[in-house]
Order: sequence, then structure tokens, then C-alpha cells
Amino acid sequence: MLTYDMGNRGTLARYDYLYRCIKADILAGRLAAGEKLPSKRALADHLEVAVVTVENAYAQLVAEGYLYTREKRGYFVSTLEEKTNPAPLPEFPAPRAEREEKKWLLDLRAGGGVTEGFPFTVWARLTRRALTERGEALLRATPHSGAAELRRAIAAHLYRFRGIQAAPDQIVVGAGTEYLYNLLVQLLGRDRIYGAEDPGYSKAVQIYGLNGAECRPLSMDEQGVKPEELGGIQVLHISPNHQFPTGVVTPIARRQSLLRWAEQEENRYIIEDDYDSEFRFTGRPIPTLKSIDRAGRVIYMNTFSRSLAPSLRISYMVLPQNLLEPYRQKLGFYSCTVPAIEQYTLASFLDEGYFDSHINRMRVRYRSQRDKVIAAIRESPLRDRAQVQRENAGLHVLVRLDTALEDRALARLAEERGIRLSFLSDFQRTEGAAAPHTLVVHYPRIDLDTFRKALDILGELL
Amino acid sequence: MLTYDMGNRGTLARYDYLYRCIKADILAGRLAAGEKLPSKRALADHLEVAVVTVENAYAQLVAEGYLYTREKRGYFVSTLEEKTNPAPLPEFPAPRAEREEKKWLLDLRAGGGVTEGFPFTVWARLTRRALTERGEALLRATPHSGAAELRRAIAAHLYRFRGIQAAPDQIVVGAGTEYLYNLLVQLLGRDRIYGAEDPGYSKAVQIYGLNGAECRPLSMDEQGVKPEELGGIQVLHISPNHQFPTGVVTPIARRQSLLRWAEQEENRYIIEDDYDSEFRFTGRPIPTLKSIDRAGRVIYMNTFSRSLAPSLRISYMVLPQNLLEPYRQKLGFYSCTVPAIEQYTLASFLDEGYFDSHINRMRVRYRSQRDKVIAAIRESPLRDRAQVQRENAGLHVLVRLDTALEDRALARLAEERGIRLSFLSDFQRTEGAAAPHTLVVHYPRIDLDTFRKALDILGELL
Repeated sequence: MLTYDMGNRGTLARYDYLYRCIKADILAGRLAAGEKLPSKRALADHLEVAVVTVENAYAQLVAEGYLYTREKRGYFVSTLEEKTNPAPLPEFPAPRAEREEKKWLLDLRAGGGVTEGFPFTVWARLTRRALTERGEALLRATPHSGAAELRRAIAAHLYRFRGIQAAPDQIVVGAGTEYLYNLLVQLLGRDRIYGAEDPGYSKAVQIYGLNGAECRPLSMDEQGVKPEELGGIQVLHISPNHQFPTGVVTPIARRQSLLRWAEQEENRYIIEDDYDSEFRFTGRPIPTLKSIDRAGRVIYMNTFSRSLAPSLRISYMVLPQNLLEPYRQKLGFYSCTVPAIEQYTLASFLDEGYFDSHINRMRVRYRSQRDKVIAAIRESPLRDRAQVQRENAGLHVLVRLDTALEDRALARLAEERGIRLSFLSDFQRTEGAAAPHTLVVHYPRIDLDTFRKALDILGELL
Repeated sequence: MLTYDMGNRGTLARYDYLYRCIKADILAGRLAAGEKLPSKRALADHLEVAVVTVENAYAQLVAEGYLYTREKRGYFVSTLEEKTNPAPLPEFPAPRAEREEKKWLLDLRAGGGVTEGFPFTVWARLTRRALTERGEALLRATPHSGAAELRRAIAAHLYRFRGIQAAPDQIVVGAGTEYLYNLLVQLLGRDRIYGAEDPGYSKAVQIYGLNGAECRPLSMDEQGVKPEELGGIQVLHISPNHQFPTGVVTPIARRQSLLRWAEQEENRYIIEDDYDSEFRFTGRPIPTLKSIDRAGRVIYMNTFSRSLAPSLRISYMVLPQNLLEPYRQKLGFYSCTVPAIEQYTLASFLDEGYFDSHINRMRVRYRSQRDKVIAAIRESPLRDRAQVQRENAGLHVLVRLDTALEDRALARLAEERGIRLSFLSDFQRTEGAAAPHTLVVHYPRIDLDTFRKALDILGELL
């Protein structure tokens, strides 16, 4: 009869210990396939445990398939594949050392804004208030396109600041624009031909590619993409209000032509990616393409990850009316990817004016930082060989260098001296699409002392 | 000369009002293409405003492309497409009435758990603590696969409760399993042939389809999918620990066969969807397939949305070591879709044992509710014609009805009486894949009085 020392079970429950012992014997072949096990009562008497202990152990072994029962005949060992002692499982893997990031004196590729100016205490207070006021209602799932309160707040914001007249049910909230690009391909179809600015924002292109959609690079002139070169394109992904990285603002006449292009055929759409329109330093924000879209051809997108904080994954898109029903039918089964509490906190943050004043404060902060960075360039040894361009908006400036060195060659020389450069040509997909010798300087996180040192070094290199 | 009544500007800044007036005149054709505008000084004198006001208005019009400048010659009106008064923009759309959901006496399709048992005060306290302790660090983006703290906490949880030995860097955190299915198709490829249980969880199938991947239905026997019928399949999506909706638990011998199947060819993978393994009512949890996967063929997935609350969109997957590098290369550019604060709160919730005690409490709560629902069936007029099956796990029970009525016909009859039924056959993709006459009863949200009334009505129908 099966004999196990029940005193060895440590902190395990009796049935659990017995189950493990029998399972080990089956896996090791000590109990052979087809072998009949002792009756529950007999084994219980033998091991001096309660019958229910054996019963529970047998039941678990049956549930997992190590034993099977035959009506009125008892418990038998199943036929398993391995009867030998199985190879040990791999060790609990040691956490691998985080990859050493190379430490740069200056890294011009580090994009994004800063989090220092974020009104964290206000955000924390609104979060606590939502926790208190809404309580367990926060646990219920929001509608798939986002909480009604947040969609209303976004619609009101868009009306006031971007001239967009959208009903809350045209707005879809999601965990980041990257996620929304994925949804858009599923909505519009991966068999369509997409087109994106070259040079441009590479993540969008990458995501279209990962979704199996063809995304063609579109060359630009000083007004943006060219309507006469859109042959074959069905979905146009552009940033007409401040193109990244060139900074081009598409003028009204070109916008009109692009809208007419979209209206020429059923199912042509323009995705207007408006990701840093908040940070324009003089004058009014550039009006959106969506605000003059009469035919329902423009899908507007923006994110709060950039204007608020990268760890808040909240973006949204505005669908034209004609896409609402296809959206509901194809994608309406998806759950909203943003937690309820973030949605309600952001809704209050927008409704109570905190977003507007945050953006105003950040605009002042960024403008001041930008001015200091530009001044540092103009006072550096580079001053006669560096021309700052397109400095009126966004979180980067372009610096045209007067040099015969190829971008790649200069980048390598600089890397040897601890400086990682970023060129317009780094963002091109087609050779020659971007102007050469043009640095992309993301300035928000630049430390000015370090920057001056780096400029001295670059002065030596040129 | 251009004449506008600056007294009409209301609350607008002077330059803003002037900009709007000139823009309206250009759009209406009152200022013709090519026309030269007055010099800044002349217009400023004429309107009795500062030169800088005109300068700013002109600059904005240039930025938007309504005007262009010629060196030393001044400002000119651009050639636009429309010179007539443009059609008015569509009205701010009225929010549409939320769709009326039909009110059912009993809706057996309403799945999911309840939120009543969630330890909301603990969660709120941990959230507040994270806000206080981590402060602005919460604003920084977490690594793309999730915060290290959360991945460590999940790895420890998996080791203790699911027998899975995973390093934190094998864990990918995302905003819901739906999102992770999307990532998996991008990782493994949409040109692979996927296979999923029939009947089965329809969202996974839908998402593979939306991603352009072929997902074949796989028939099951009482042990799950059949290894000999996997010809052509490359990625197998299964729930071996508690299949939805059949409740089948795949026994150890079949698990071994499935693993051998996966090992036979490079690039065969099994996605183990373990979504309600927490709710098993007697004995130990069924060990995972991942825990005996020696060759790195199993991708394990689970979600906290079901075990905690639907509004918390936090799911995760465990990638085998051999997929880590492809994952980093292909998908490492994605930002993590879960906000930092939820990640840190959940990490504390796991580390401090709140998750375990929550699950234990919910298991008691659900078992009691399940027992009451089964008792109600056994005391109802249906008792002689209804057999409760597979009642040991998960948040639904199956009820086999003794009837000659087709499922569709019975569903229609019941709907006329205000009862929405859910059948096993509703989850089948292939005619005949699911046993007929079998109700799927999601019990967590059932009100017992209503349920008894509904059972009386069903008794009359049968």
C-alpha cells in the first residue's frame, strides 16, 4: 500500500501533501499506468488520516487527469507520456541586469517635454476627490469609447481651443495615440494604402507596418505634402499644424486642396495628428484642418501624454459622423483601455480650467528655455556656422549647420566626443527627403551648462 | 483702406479681432488674390491701433497662409480656392440620446463578476499612498513592458500561485488582454494560422480576425482540443485550466501531447489564456500548462480586470525567453498602455497580500451565490428537466435542459417573456460544435428572486 510520512508535510494541508506525493509517484513511474489505487477508506486507515483527506487528494488528481475513475471499481493511474523522472524545470531565472544605457554628455535624441511644471498637487487632489466622491462606481467599466464625462469635457475643449465642433459620441478615448493608430487600421482596413510625411514621425509608420498596411513616404515642399503626388494614397496621415520634425505649417490654400483631394473619392480620409499644437509661442494656435472639414473626411487625433505627462496614457480621436456606425459595428466590442479613475480626474482637470492654465504656464516655461537654448547657440563658437530655423512652435528647434560633413560622419565624430546628435535626415525614409546638415534640437530637457560645453566641442569638430 | 470698427471686438485682443476681420474678407473674396495690403504703419494709423497690433495680425495670417510676403514689397493676399462665402460649418451636433437598452426580467448574457466585494478602501488608500510617496515620479513613463515593481510583484505571484517560474523581464503589462492579443499578432505575425477552441471566447477570435490573421475553429472532446486535429495550426489559443464556456479542464496527458505538438516545429506556440483560474471552488488551482513548459512554447496570459474590477485595465502576459529579443526589436518602441499610478498601486496590492485575501473572499462569495443559484434551479418547476453540469469553477454553470426545442426557438420564446437566454451554441463557430440544449448561466449578478420568477416562466415554456 502507498506509504507516505504525513509528518513531513510541513505547512501543507494533509490532502495537498498526499496529492503531491501521489502525483510525484505517477510522474516518476513508481505508480504504473492502469494501476488501481487503494480505496479511499483503506488508504485513510493506512495513513491514519480522515477519509475526506484521501477523497480530496484523489479528486484533485482526477481533476488534473493523473487518475481516472471507473464506475464502482475505483481509481486508476492514467497513461502519461513521461514515466521517467522529468527533467527539472528551468531555474527561476535571475533577473537580468538592466541594460547599461550609454551615458552621453548631451543627448539630442531625448525628446518629449518635462514633468517639472505639472500641477501634481492639483492632479492628486482631483484623483483623491474622484476616489471619495465616486467611490465604487469607479470600479465599473466605462463605455468602450470612454467615460461620457471625459468625452464631453474633450468636446468642449476642442470647441473652444481648436475650433472643432464634435459631439461627445464622435470622440474615442484610448491608452495613447499608438493604441489609436492600431484601432484606425482595424477600422479603415489594412488593405488601404496609407501615406505619411517624409521625413516624419516614425512610430506611426512603424505601427501601420506592424499592422500589415502599406504606408508610403510622401515628399514635402515648404507647405507640407503635395496633393498632386497623392496618387494611390487612400489614407493620408499628416501633421498640418506643426509637422514633425520639419516644423512646416500647411497654409490654408494647401489645406483646401488636401480636403478637395479627400472628397474626390469615397473612403479617402485624412488623419490629422495634432500632437503638439499646444506649444505655439506667438500668436494664436493654427486652426485645425478638422475645423474646416465639411465633408467628414478628417479624423483628428491628439494626446494628453505629451501636454500633461508621459505616464498618463490618454489620447483621443474625433471620428467623422460617417465612421461612427462602422466603428461601433467593428470595434464597439473593445473595452476602453484607460482606467476609469484617470478618465474622471482628467475630465475635472479640463472642466475646471486646470488644463488651460497648465498649458499657458508650460508655454511660458518652454519659450524661456527655447530662448536660452537659441541664445547659447548664438553665443557659441558655432554662431557663424549655425542658423536657427522654425523656432516658433513645438518642443524642438532646427539648426542648419554650415558644413561639408555628411550627417552620418558628423554624428560619428560627435559620438566619439560623448554627444548624440539628431538630424532631420534621421527621420527620413527616402534618401534625400530631408534637408541635410540640419540638427533637430529637442530643448525641454537640455541642461544649459552641458549644452554650452557640447557646443564648444561641436565648434571644434566643424 | 481696410476699415474695421475696433470697438466691436468684444473680449478679443485687438490683433486677434483684426486677424479675424481680414481673414473673413479674404475668405469672402472682398480681398482678392494678389491684392497688396496696406503697410503695417499705414493700417495702424488708419485704425488707431499700435503698429505691433497690425504686425501680429499680419504674422498670424502669414502663418496660416492667408497672406504672403514679398521681400521689401509688403503683404499680399494668397490665392485660395473658395472666394465665396463658405458654407456654414455643421452645427455643433446635439449629443445623441444614449441607446435604450432593452430591459430584461433576466439577462443570462450579462457576464463578468461583481464589484461589491472589491476592497475599495484599501485600493484608495494604496493609491493615495502612491500619490504621496512617489509624487512627481508618477509622471515619468514606465518601461514599455511595465513598471519593474509591478513585473516583480506579478512574477512572485505567479511563482506562488500558478507554479510559473518567470523573470520579471518576461512579463509584459498592458491595458487589457484585448490589447495584448493585438500585440501578440504583431509579434508572432498575421501570416500564421491561429487556432482557437470552438465553442470559445469570441473576442480573441474577433481580434485575430481584425488583425487580418486566420483563426480556425478547433473542435473539442471532453479533454479540450485534439492534438491530432491541429494540422496547419501554428499558434494555438486555448484555456486548458477552465475552458470558456464548456468548463473543460484539460488533463495532464493531453497537456503533454499538446506541448509535444508545439515542440515538433520551430515557431509553434500555445497561448494559455488563464482568465478565471482564480475561481475554483474545491481543491487546489489547476496547475498551468506554462508550469510544465520546458521548451519555451507557452505564452501565458491573465488579467486583473476580471479578478479585481472591469474598470482597471491591467492584464499581462509571460513571454518565453526565446521571444524576448523579437519582442524588444519589433514592439519595444511601444509605450506601456497602463498609467504609472495604477501599476504602482497594483504592485503594492499584490506585494502586501491584499490580492490573495480578496480572491479568497470572492471565492467564498461566488461559491455561496453559485450554490443558491443551483438550489433555485433544483427547487424550480424545471428541476426534472434541468441538469447542472461543471459547477466546480468559474463564474458560470452549465444547465442541460431536457427539451426537444431548438436553442434558437427556445431563446425566441423566452425573449417574448422578457428573458434573455445564453446557450453553449451561442459560442460556437461551427454548426454542431457545442452541445445543444445547454444554458450558460453567468451567476454572479443574478438576483435570486428574479431568477426564481424566470425559472417559473421557463418551466411553462418547456
